[in-house]
Amino acid sequence: MLTRIDHVGIAVHDLASAVTFYERAFGLRVVARETHDDQGVREVMLAVADAAAGGSYVQLLEPLHPDSPVGRFLARRGEGVHHIGYGVEDVEAALRAIGAAGVRRIDQRPRHGSMGASIAFLHPKDVGGVLTELVQAAPRR
Amino acid sequence: MLTRIDHVGIAVHDLASAVTFYERAFGLRVVARETHDDQGVREVMLAVADAAAGGSYVQLLEPLHPDSPVGRFLARRGEGVHHIGYGVEDVEAALRAIGAAGVRRIDQRPRHGSMGASIAFLHPKDVGGVLTELVQAAPRR
Repeated sequence: MLTRIDHVGIAVHDLASAVTFYERAFGLRVVARETHDDQGVREVMLAVADAAAGGSYVQLLEPLHPDSPVGRFLARRGEGVHHIGYGVEDVEAALRAIGAAGVRRIDQRPRHGSMGASIAFLHPKDVGGVLTELVQAAPRR
Repeated sequence: MLTRIDHVGIAVHDLASAVTFYERAFGLRVVARETHDDQGVREVMLAVADAAAGGSYVQLLEPLHPDSPVGRFLARRGEGVHHIGYGVEDVEAALRAIGAAGVRRIDQRPRHGSMGASIAFLHPKDVGGVLTELVQAAPRR
């Protein structure tokens, strides 16, 4: 069902300095910068690998304000891994199958994610403390 | 320098039930079970994807005793993402380059990791709170 590790979502206080760090220390390349007002987050995607099934990315996340999911995460735990995104071919089918296995879903149906993807989050309490995202990448042009 | 997200290392209290969960909910397949007495950990690798550059895995980690790195992590933070492993072609060269960029290394030189890989850990304080591992996969047979 899972096709790849799509991305590692990392919460940071200062997006610009975190991006510079990942570029400089690891040679990663920025492929997208997006702001999602509804989620209260600014993010930068850096490419780690590319493959026919879809790429793999480091996703750096900076909160737009403290009272947002990433803002509350930073206040509670400090900088670090916020969530893991796994690639799937069909996010609706994956959500149904995973729901049938008894895993609670934060998103009952897919919504828009980074770089045109369709995404859905699963409840971390049902996935061993890991906030887990399913990612159906946008069709390639 | 990085070729893929090699694995997500996840700390769990009960390895057997966590493995069953990842098999059942996500359809992952166990590819290795190892015990590392020196690190005080039992682990199971489940394959997410395979590629010419090397596979991608979920690595479930159960401490052999509370006074071990994963045991202390569980006591402090509970179950969740313990570290991220990135694939590299040459772990010695990557360690040198990353060290030259000013990142402190936990391992000054590579050591043996899961499934015959050569690995080295970087200091989480220098990588935005993320315990980061470099993984040079074992040559394919």
